[in-house]
Amino acid sequence: MERRKYREKHKEYIAEGVRILYDALENKQTIKSAVFCDALYRTAGGESLLTRLVDQGIRVYHIPEKLYAEIADTESPQGIMAVLPRIQINLGQLLKKENGLYILLDRVQDPGNLGTIIRTADAAGVDAVLLTKGCVDVYNPKTIRSTMGSIFHLPILILEDQQEAQDFFKSNQIRILTTSLSAKCYHYEIDYRQAAAIVVGNEANGVSDLWMEAADDLVKIPILGKAESLNVSTAASIMLYEAVRQRME
Amino acid sequence: MERRKYREKHKEYIAEGVRILYDALENKQTIKSAVFCDALYRTAGGESLLTRLVDQGIRVYHIPEKLYAEIADTESPQGIMAVLPRIQINLGQLLKKENGLYILLDRVQDPGNLGTIIRTADAAGVDAVLLTKGCVDVYNPKTIRSTMGSIFHLPILILEDQQEAQDFFKSNQIRILTTSLSAKCYHYEIDYRQAAAIVVGNEANGVSDLWMEAADDLVKIPILGKAESLNVSTAASIMLYEAVRQRME
Repeated sequence: MERRKYREKHKEYIAEGVRILYDALENKQTIKSAVFCDALYRTAGGESLLTRLVDQGIRVYHIPEKLYAEIADTESPQGIMAVLPRIQINLGQLLKKENGLYILLDRVQDPGNLGTIIRTADAAGVDAVLLTKGCVDVYNPKTIRSTMGSIFHLPILILEDQQEAQDFFKSNQIRILTTSLSAKCYHYEIDYRQAAAIVVGNEANGVSDLWMEAADDLVKIPILGKAESLNVSTAASIMLYEAVRQRME
Repeated sequence: MERRKYREKHKEYIAEGVRILYDALENKQTIKSAVFCDALYRTAGGESLLTRLVDQGIRVYHIPEKLYAEIADTESPQGIMAVLPRIQINLGQLLKKENGLYILLDRVQDPGNLGTIIRTADAAGVDAVLLTKGCVDVYNPKTIRSTMGSIFHLPILILEDQQEAQDFFKSNQIRILTTSLSAKCYHYEIDYRQAAAIVVGNEANGVSDLWMEAADDLVKIPILGKAESLNVSTAASIMLYEAVRQRME
């Protein structure tokens, strides 16, 4: 939690690993500085990443392996981490699209779930991921890892004001489709070919009343076996790919 | 890894937490013995679980909280864990069904992915989950937690011999649908209303040649954005729920 406060105060975060930093460079992200240790030379692609960072004039610091291991978040560190600025965008900056597809996450708590949803949203061609303030920090190291680079591929908005998001959806004719275990309608009975925002909620408590009341449709995913519910990232994936299927067919 | 060997040698495993042990009792699982500490009295439903275990004649041992915390797998332990026998079933014991739905996991490595797939398979009404021997141990504590009780809800088979599974599918007219990034066919272009086995593979390398060659259909999930691939549990969910949709509609 202390780390989250630090990230928020300084509007920066740390990305760790060779692959994610290649993704950052390829997606024209600003890298403020990087820290590495000798382990980097034993990581595939490590040395050429270092060369690219230096060539771009990024400050790079060499530190001892033991120190690196102490500050690293992963158990088998690849030997490089970098500081990037948090990107803050607001609803007004989103491109207006006729058939936009959005996903809104309401108080999702697990960093792995959040990262996996961002990755799936990217794959599904989603136009923006919207997060309520009660969600786990998107710049949590585990979230960043779980996105597999997708954190750089699509706009991710942290909502200061949930009402503003509802107004954005309503004024742009974006249908709000909220998942609810008590819905009467199955997820595949809805038409996703128009602009739509899929809303999924907290792992234990689901979606808040605010998004239940704002919904154009409440939808549920059928459960045929003895499971009580689905994982939130599973539910999001099923809805998003039902939208993909309908739009492609 | 040492723990996995121990679990395999003794054909036992440990389940931890109040909820999962209620699930075990409700699903008529044998519980060999249980260990608890005073933290259990502070966990909702803890005391009545203890009473139920004692009433059933299960040996229950009280140990100090400090000792419990040392052997617990979770960071905030609920104060109870139990030893259960591993259940080993083989393909011959599976019920023959006309429109069976199966999922086969080939060398899936992440315990959370494995558990989430079992949970989704349960929800989707899958008849059995089949695992190649290269998969992470299904009795890993993180896997058990991620299943949210579904580990007790449907048959889970660890395949000694993959050829035997192929013969089982072929001789029972179960179509083998293998996921592959190089497939020509999208996942929703396949008919899932007949008996089907969905095959998904290792997080980094996908499905082995064995299951590519045995496939009746190779299928891929469309990727519209810049993500390179989907998480394996996401891919499994999308395929399973496409089958559910087709079978319900």
